[in-house]
Formats: sequence, C-alpha cells, structure tokens
Amino acid sequence: MRLTDSDLNDMPSRERATLVNSLSGFKSANLIGTANTKGQSNLAIMSSVVHLGSHPPLLALVIRPGGEERHTLDNILSTQHFSINHVSTSMIEAAHQTAARYPRDTCEFEATGLTPQWWTGFSAPVVAQANVKLAMVLRDHQELTINGTHLVIGEVVQLELPDESLNADGSLDLLSTDTVALAGLDAYHRGDLLKRMAYAKPELPPRTLDTAGVSDEP
Amino acid sequence: MRLTDSDLNDMPSRERATLVNSLSGFKSANLIGTANTKGQSNLAIMSSVVHLGSHPPLLALVIRPGGEERHTLDNILSTQHFSINHVSTSMIEAAHQTAARYPRDTCEFEATGLTPQWWTGFSAPVVAQANVKLAMVLRDHQELTINGTHLVIGEVVQLELPDESLNADGSLDLLSTDTVALAGLDAYHRGDLLKRMAYAKPELPPRTLDTAGVSDEP
Repeated sequence: MRLTDSDLNDMPSRERATLVNSLSGFKSANLIGTANTKGQSNLAIMSSVVHLGSHPPLLALVIRPGGEERHTLDNILSTQHFSINHVSTSMIEAAHQTAARYPRDTCEFEATGLTPQWWTGFSAPVVAQANVKLAMVLRDHQELTINGTHLVIGEVVQLELPDESLNADGSLDLLSTDTVALAGLDAYHRGDLLKRMAYAKPELPPRTLDTAGVSDEP
Repeated sequence: MRLTDSDLNDMPSRERATLVNSLSGFKSANLIGTANTKGQSNLAIMSSVVHLGSHPPLLALVIRPGGEERHTLDNILSTQHFSINHVSTSMIEAAHQTAARYPRDTCEFEATGLTPQWWTGFSAPVVAQANVKLAMVLRDHQELTINGTHLVIGEVVQLELPDESLNADGSLDLLSTDTVALAGLDAYHRGDLLKRMAYAKPELPPRTLDTAGVSDEP
C-alpha cells in the first residue's frame, strides 16, 4: 500500500506514533542510567542511541523532553554522566517497564528489580544485569528546533563486555552478548546472524565472510 | 573485560572503528537513494537512521562528509529529496556493496543490480526491490561541530509497504517486511520476535502481549 503525508496526518495519534516508530527499521534497545546530584538514580529504556564516530568514540541519543525521559535529560545535564546498557533477553520485561511514568522520586531500579552498580569516579549507575555497559560523559547537547527533542552527545570513557563476545577484528558478537533489537515501540527481537560481509571495494563482487571462521579473542 | 578510553585510543584504527560501531547495539540497515540535479542517481547503505518524532513524521540521519557518503549529502542538499529503503534479506550483498568507493559518475544501482524507481514529483529514486520505501523531504540540516558529521532531518511525505505487514495497531511487522538489522559494520541479522510488551504503566506489573493474537489489517 502507498500512504501519503495526509494519510499519516489523518491517522489516530497512537497508531501514527506506532507506525512512524517502526519506519526506521530495527532499533537498538538500551537502558540509560543516570542519577541526580543527590545520587537518586533513574533508569529509562531508549531506542534512539546512534553511532556518531569512533575516534573519539561518540554516541548520540535523542531524548524527548516530555514524559519519563525528562528525568534522564535533567540528570545528564546536571552530572554530565550517563550509562548505556544493552537490553538482553532476560531483561526485556524489566527494561520495558522503566518506560512507565513513575514519579520523580521513584527509582526505576527498585521498581523493576534491576540492580544499580556504581563505578569509581562515575556518578551514573550502570545496570549490573547488562552484559554490555558503557560509561558516557556528556560532550555536547542541543535542543533541535524542529520538534523540541534534545540531541545528547556522549563519549565512551569506560566499558565492560563479556570477553568471549569480542571478536579478533574488534567486532562485538551481539548474539553472544544476548543483545535484543526493538521494532516499533514494543516488539523485542533476538538477532539471527545471516552473514558477515567483507569490506566493500568497487572492483570486487560482494563477498560473504566465513562467519564460522571469525575467531574470538582469547 | 573492562576497557577505558585509553584502551580504545590505543587500539588500531580499524579495530576501534569496528568495536565502537558495535557498541550502540543493533542498528537499522537502510539504503539511501538520492540523485543530483542532472538526475544521476546514487545509493548508499547507512545504519544511522533514527526516529525523531511522529507528528510530523521525522527521521534523522548521520552522514559522514568524507568517503562515499559525501555524494549522498551533496545530492540531498541540492534536491532536498532522499529515499530510505529497508534492506531485506535478499538484498544484503547488493546493499553492502553500495559502500564501495565508486567514482561519482558510477551509479550504484547499475553497479549492484538494484533497480531505481521514480515516484511522481519526487526527485530521488527509491529501490524497487525494497519492501519498505520512504520518500523524504529535507527539513533541517547541520554540521555537528564535535566531529564534523552532518545531521540530516527529513520528513516522511510518502511511503510504500506490503499490506500484510501493517498490524491493526499501526505497528509494522519487520519480519513480514523481511527487514534486516546490522551489528557493527558488516554483520547482517534477521530478527526473531521474542515478545511484544503492553504499554508500560507504574501500577501494573510488566505484561507480555499475546503476539499470536496481533491481527493484520485487512
């Protein structure tokens, strides 16, 4: 079917939000850990983490200023620190539940059964249960005038991952880390590796790497 | 294992890029179709499409100004139009091959065997083989000072998707559209639906929707 901008505009608000949230394809599912200046922690699921550059290692995050996400934004701006934690299959229910509109003084860790972990010198909690944990320092922030969302840019200053998930070429095996992908607002998927491709060059036909031959780092 | 920013900084450049590109979790895999003012088309795979808002329906895209992606950026700024096309399982080789550094006058459609389709009133080609095709109009653009990447914001003005992929609640079934997810720079995955969750509310324990009961729109 073909839909126009008028068709989208005429849809009921919830359906439109659900559809448009599905249009970009699969999304990352991450728990963003923060704390306010008193050390009260907050945890929020977000699907908007995007790679910005690898040197320095920068990730960006789109935050909606309304709703539950505003506590996260306030905390990041106050402390300059936040954590990014991959949602794994066993954490889906708890991770999704962080999206509920809890009052500001309710800790989503307690409410959902996840465990905060505090790293030395870092003022945001990471999620103990997550297999991939990133400690991020705020490097840039702006409100996007087009719709009032906030673009938050952070640098990875420390990370923890399972030894066996890091391949020799530097890639992270997201099946081994049990990381899930999100479709739309609420559909959690596990990934099935179809193929790894060789570096693309104009003179060569596409090649598939022997995925079985990708070795783990010791 | 725990890695610090110094560890990342000391890694060989290719390995660091590979690792940092894996840190955000699963990423969308989309082909961005553009044309220059003479109608010469360009196609580039990108994993940086991110949801920005649903009313108006806005998606953002991070583009690196160097390398192959610069043709895409030039074309978007010239014509204000671009298409976003989901990479599906049968298109992986061709889609990945668009990342090769072809000369500016080489058409990635011809080089990779994908077929451009032209929609009335829209100056960028969409990919005929894609199951989900979005026609986008540029709404905002800026160079991010932190690392010189470009943030391109577009509005969905028209889209095409398979009738059977649109659920009654507005969500798109990304298994039915055969959409793939990308891990790192080159690992293409199919999604396996684990669960759909109900809208999260503070007073309720997490609930799983009966995914088998989600009906398709007629």
